[in-house]
Amino acid sequence: MENTEKNIKFEINKKLIASIEAMVDVKNNSGILTLLEDFHYADIAEIFSELSLEHSTYIIKLLDSEKTADILKELDDDDREKILKNLSAKEIAEEIEELDSDDATDIISELPEHRQEKVIAQIEDTELVEDIKELLSYDEDTAGGLMAKELVQVNENWSVTRCVKEMRSQAENVTRVHSIYVVDNDGKLIGRLSLKDLLMASPRANISEVYIPKVDFVDVNEDVEDVAKVMQKYDLEAIPVVDDNRILLGRITIDDVVDVMKEEAEKDYQLAAGISQDVEADDTVWELTKARLPWLVLGLLGGLGSVFIMEGYEEIMTNEKYSKLFFFTPLIAAMAGNVGVQSSAIIVQGLANDVVKGSLFNRLLKEISLSLINGIVLGLLVILFGYATGMDLEFSLTIAISMLCVIIVAALIGTFVPIILDKKGIDPAIATGPFITTSNDIFGIFLFFYIAKLMLHF
Amino acid sequence: MENTEKNIKFEINKKLIASIEAMVDVKNNSGILTLLEDFHYADIAEIFSELSLEHSTYIIKLLDSEKTADILKELDDDDREKILKNLSAKEIAEEIEELDSDDATDIISELPEHRQEKVIAQIEDTELVEDIKELLSYDEDTAGGLMAKELVQVNENWSVTRCVKEMRSQAENVTRVHSIYVVDNDGKLIGRLSLKDLLMASPRANISEVYIPKVDFVDVNEDVEDVAKVMQKYDLEAIPVVDDNRILLGRITIDDVVDVMKEEAEKDYQLAAGISQDVEADDTVWELTKARLPWLVLGLLGGLGSVFIMEGYEEIMTNEKYSKLFFFTPLIAAMAGNVGVQSSAIIVQGLANDVVKGSLFNRLLKEISLSLINGIVLGLLVILFGYATGMDLEFSLTIAISMLCVIIVAALIGTFVPIILDKKGIDPAIATGPFITTSNDIFGIFLFFYIAKLMLHF
Repeated sequence: MENTEKNIKFEINKKLIASIEAMVDVKNNSGILTLLEDFHYADIAEIFSELSLEHSTYIIKLLDSEKTADILKELDDDDREKILKNLSAKEIAEEIEELDSDDATDIISELPEHRQEKVIAQIEDTELVEDIKELLSYDEDTAGGLMAKELVQVNENWSVTRCVKEMRSQAENVTRVHSIYVVDNDGKLIGRLSLKDLLMASPRANISEVYIPKVDFVDVNEDVEDVAKVMQKYDLEAIPVVDDNRILLGRITIDDVVDVMKEEAEKDYQLAAGISQDVEADDTVWELTKARLPWLVLGLLGGLGSVFIMEGYEEIMTNEKYSKLFFFTPLIAAMAGNVGVQSSAIIVQGLANDVVKGSLFNRLLKEISLSLINGIVLGLLVILFGYATGMDLEFSLTIAISMLCVIIVAALIGTFVPIILDKKGIDPAIATGPFITTSNDIFGIFLFFYIAKLMLHF
Repeated sequence: MENTEKNIKFEINKKLIASIEAMVDVKNNSGILTLLEDFHYADIAEIFSELSLEHSTYIIKLLDSEKTADILKELDDDDREKILKNLSAKEIAEEIEELDSDDATDIISELPEHRQEKVIAQIEDTELVEDIKELLSYDEDTAGGLMAKELVQVNENWSVTRCVKEMRSQAENVTRVHSIYVVDNDGKLIGRLSLKDLLMASPRANISEVYIPKVDFVDVNEDVEDVAKVMQKYDLEAIPVVDDNRILLGRITIDDVVDVMKEEAEKDYQLAAGISQDVEADDTVWELTKARLPWLVLGLLGGLGSVFIMEGYEEIMTNEKYSKLFFFTPLIAAMAGNVGVQSSAIIVQGLANDVVKGSLFNRLLKEISLSLINGIVLGLLVILFGYATGMDLEFSLTIAISMLCVIIVAALIGTFVPIILDKKGIDPAIATGPFITTSNDIFGIFLFFYIAKLMLHF
């Protein structure tokens, strides 16, 4: 038995890919089956991302649908879409029958509408069809869109013995039993029971005597991000989903929520970097361009805006005393941008974790004192630089003081724009990237020349 | 029983905080106990973050240690540290005895060294003391540092009946039973068994007949980030941890891994925003300054570097035809910075998800074609802008072409710096933020003037 154990490390390599391709090319079916037999479906999905569509489709049709269903579930959306195009409605239906209702619904919802109906018509398991139809009716960003219908539920009036019997038959459909949900005669959720409790209870007891009436649940219309937050906060591995009348509809498990959290974190990170769509390093040039170009155009418009501001000061260009100001515009723009990004990132993360508390006035005071400290230190460095390079003290003082003002304003913009967006119900993460950098660039340069004009009297 | 059910929504409000403070002030102990009785420990931890240290400590000492242990576990590090300072070694030991070995070890490891020993000496449960000492010996970034010692393990030679009996006694110490691990006489991990399997097995069967010999495991020295990746990839809710001889040492559950993943995502995000330490919006001004100022100094040095570059072109400042170039430096710096951040973010995320495949040469081609598309579109916009504002075509063409070159170089730097860092074993995430922006700023301005000089012959 030793050899069937496996360590978690799976490394894809060119040799493996080449040998699979070679076996498909010569239609060595038994070789493929033997090779892939011990592979985890997630590993095969990884292998598929390296194979051509023809090779992948051949293998999908060859393998047992019990295995291929899980592989399909695991593939990334683009790869799956291409493979499903090569399968008939009947073949897709066979795959789907192997999946839990939530995964089945995810795959069906990705199909073009005219194919959805055809595939559903081919599914033989009528209960699954009903479940899929129900799940398709929920918004995908709500608890209903994330939940699975498979769960173990028992009636409060049953005995422990009957419960174990019923559970055995229900549990066959449920991959992992986290909790047994207890309902009343109307199907209303009234409590839970762990498998451990059931194992330890006297067989003659009644469920109503042993169940735990304290049960967390979410409403079917709850936002998935809120569900994720709650499951993480309370360390829940599964949570039941109910309707307005507290009728038990389904359950959400932690593995689905982990995916939601990961996507959320990646989305925020990409927005902060000026990438507006969910792209990956291996996507096509065209997809990457669509995600990146709009933000660069925004940056360009901002840069052209600062050209206009500086044109207003063109006459000082010929005056050797003042013209050096133009050398400092990239510095000012960079400081304004960096400070803005820092402030906004802290606020956006704080809002996501609900740690932004206290009054706006206190936050204002904090950002101003933080900016004063940073600005004074950086200003002193500028004066030192000026001294070392033989600049006029008046001139370096002007740069230091206007930079201080720019830093304060940039921090305030970086702090309050996300807070205002959040209050208006807009995702504050869009304010962390090029948006805040660009507006702070323009504002910083404007302020820089304005203050310099006041101080140097030009 | 109805009223003990609860929806997941918990909202902290000023009235609640004020009434708790008032009860503590008048030492209304029974009032506090009644109010907090039905609160989840995670909610009480949230309340604590709003209370003064005196109020929190009073409540910690008042409540049962069964509840306060979980509250302490849930508090953020700073709050916990302050409260623990107010407790005696004996009091801390009582809290710790209520926790699982992993949480207990986390709290002890945060104490100053001289207190650690005192607290451990006060723990009565000798098994827990041994577990804590073992867990303290592992690096906190490895599987050993994350795992708990509590698990349910059975011997392959036991009968199902004996297994259920043993399990009942072991399971009392295990909050959640995900899997029952099967070991041989040497304690070597050879398989697993789900509770479901156990419930369904014949009582007379032997474990060796019913267990599943396929079991995923991780080595005790495995990096936690790799453990997180694997658990997510294979949708595991728990994974056993073994030593070099495959002796079962402990297990890691998904809730711990969710925390690791979240911290990791937040760290990358903060690095990208130029924040070098794990800070939150509610941290002190001093902590925030320490995390932010170093990156601003880096940005300042970069900005001063570009001052030097521009000083080299000071003589063209008095020439009206060329002096306008200086108006475009913030634009060039912004484009170089934005493109660099985009490229590096995609690569860093790709490296984290293992999607960066193919040869370096292919990646080079891709980045160059992407930059060409973006650069040409943006260049055309600049020429359009020049036409609309009456600029020389030669001049606007110069800006467009040098910007195109800057974009290509910035994309290449943004792509290859993280790849090189990753190959050298350095976290590529440090290359996403101010580091890449600053170096691209300088390099972009240098290139801009250099190309302009070639094209305009000054």
